[in-house]
Amino acid sequence: MAARIHNFNPGPAVLPLSVLEEAREALVDFKGTGMSITEISHRSAVFEEVLNDAIARLGRLVNLPDNFKVLFLQGGASTQFFMVPMNLIPEGRSADYINTGTWSTKAIKEIDILKKPYKVIASSEDRDFCYIPKEFRVSPDAAYLHFTSNNTIKGTQWSRFPDAGNVPLVSDMSSDMLCRPFDPGPFGLMYAGAQKNLGPAGVTLVIIREDMLERVPKSLPTMLRYTTHAEQNSLYNTPPCINIYIVQLVFKWLEETIGGLEAMERINMEKADLLYGFIDSNDFYRGTADKDSRSMMNVTFRLPKEDLEKQFVAEAQKSGLGGLKGHRSVGGCRASLYNAVGLDDVQSLVDFMKEFAQKNG
Amino acid sequence: MAARIHNFNPGPAVLPLSVLEEAREALVDFKGTGMSITEISHRSAVFEEVLNDAIARLGRLVNLPDNFKVLFLQGGASTQFFMVPMNLIPEGRSADYINTGTWSTKAIKEIDILKKPYKVIASSEDRDFCYIPKEFRVSPDAAYLHFTSNNTIKGTQWSRFPDAGNVPLVSDMSSDMLCRPFDPGPFGLMYAGAQKNLGPAGVTLVIIREDMLERVPKSLPTMLRYTTHAEQNSLYNTPPCINIYIVQLVFKWLEETIGGLEAMERINMEKADLLYGFIDSNDFYRGTADKDSRSMMNVTFRLPKEDLEKQFVAEAQKSGLGGLKGHRSVGGCRASLYNAVGLDDVQSLVDFMKEFAQKNG
Repeated sequence: MAARIHNFNPGPAVLPLSVLEEAREALVDFKGTGMSITEISHRSAVFEEVLNDAIARLGRLVNLPDNFKVLFLQGGASTQFFMVPMNLIPEGRSADYINTGTWSTKAIKEIDILKKPYKVIASSEDRDFCYIPKEFRVSPDAAYLHFTSNNTIKGTQWSRFPDAGNVPLVSDMSSDMLCRPFDPGPFGLMYAGAQKNLGPAGVTLVIIREDMLERVPKSLPTMLRYTTHAEQNSLYNTPPCINIYIVQLVFKWLEETIGGLEAMERINMEKADLLYGFIDSNDFYRGTADKDSRSMMNVTFRLPKEDLEKQFVAEAQKSGLGGLKGHRSVGGCRASLYNAVGLDDVQSLVDFMKEFAQKNG
Repeated sequence: MAARIHNFNPGPAVLPLSVLEEAREALVDFKGTGMSITEISHRSAVFEEVLNDAIARLGRLVNLPDNFKVLFLQGGASTQFFMVPMNLIPEGRSADYINTGTWSTKAIKEIDILKKPYKVIASSEDRDFCYIPKEFRVSPDAAYLHFTSNNTIKGTQWSRFPDAGNVPLVSDMSSDMLCRPFDPGPFGLMYAGAQKNLGPAGVTLVIIREDMLERVPKSLPTMLRYTTHAEQNSLYNTPPCINIYIVQLVFKWLEETIGGLEAMERINMEKADLLYGFIDSNDFYRGTADKDSRSMMNVTFRLPKEDLEKQFVAEAQKSGLGGLKGHRSVGGCRASLYNAVGLDDVQSLVDFMKEFAQKNG
């Protein structure tokens, strides 16, 4: 078996080793059933326990009020981009969107395709999305305010979620869900593809406030209605069982090994401070996001020349530091510091960066 | 580790042990990358090799002509129920459906919700779906003819696919895909949730003929257009990587261990003959499907009394024979004999059934 690399992949991303080791055994024999986790019925008591335990743990992790439902869907955030406006805009109403980068832009593209009314109330496109807008006015009668809580590609993150008064917040939290505590109260809906902080690709976490379910039009295909999945506890059809199972193990790790989201945030801040601190301490590396908008999860930076960036990524890879290439749409370098990345991984990266700068600076 | 049970689950269903054992190792270290299969980028060369090898193997297994595209989607067959009519009915055209049970009925419900024109040209509802209709007239200008190739709940299967002339066939093959050789030529689209013959729940195989892609309306949400996934080789967004990986291993097992679909069919016929032969040899057990419509994959049968059926399922479970309860909507008993069920499993079941009949007959 090869040694574990320091994995800074933007997603699918690193998972806790203890989770992978437990899942490995379940792949042949799940809890002494004589069956793999992939071979048991989704309607069996053993699987319902997995599902309900995942829901209960998530509820405890985020202090979820009773009037929220936790769903496990398929199709990634890209599917939520159109399910949200299909389900949550009542006739005659309009939705507000804030555009903070590639993923927000995609979400806006999908409401546009649906020809539903919407308004982009703020955007940071003027400076290539390197900051989180501070000034905006939420339409008081908006069906919801949609924003992307963390921008994986541009390396920015909302440090405090927007205040929309009585307008429910809807957020794509794919790349920072559970990185820190937050108040679910003002949200109508939160969604997150699993493959960053939550588990393997192939399952999407959706948390929906019950009053939002009243908006769902009956005219939608069954699988596209949030009500279908809320009423059937995500078991309307066969769910992605192994994916949900690994998510359950990650929630357990967060609760029992890490000690909850306050503890997770402390670790995440320590990791981010270490890396940003080093970047700011020299002239060789340059962070691309405004300091007050920096993401704890995705640290984007440039080197003096593109050639050096290529060399940096390649040499890092050889030294066991993977996933440092920036997104193909923006170039540069990026280190993703999701929950399962350890402080030791970040220290190894900083050590490598120091050495690389000395040699090539 | 518990001994493997004889697993007759209707889906999620048993997978080949060699596949599970290989996948188990990949869950911590995938091919010496120092990463789990869940931790590698879906745009990495190692994952693209998994994806492209799965596509190539499927192509060889079913002798797929060059004008078909193989897609790996999410959302199960239940999502295809509405994606098919959304994508494949040009303005002013109508689609034909044949209703052979629970799943066909659900597919028809979704085209009905969409308010697209359709016609049910045959149904076996008159005798509770215990047979495959033989007489029907396909509308010559139908956009497609939709049918369910195998009816998991009712225990029936098309022994020969319907002849629709120039009208493209569209089939939900979730529960018998790759159980035997077939000619893809007359098909416009085939789909199958993975969790019976193909792999773990969480990925849906779609095989689409290229001329069908020309019908896809640009007005649909991006994720709901077959063209999106065909143009991007199923990598428009992050696919369910571990699920696709296990499907690849199952295809490899079918090709290299079993020796292809002719060999698979021989084994499947031997298994089905053994069980149906026994059922027909006594008066205690009674098959529920007409003999000429019987499924090789799902053998549905009754015992003289409902109490005995409950006792049968419970005692079988204790003897290491799992998943024999009929679907909650129909009751009775059912043994699912998917590809990964061995002849030895079926022999063990027949032995148990003999003993049970002797004791309780």
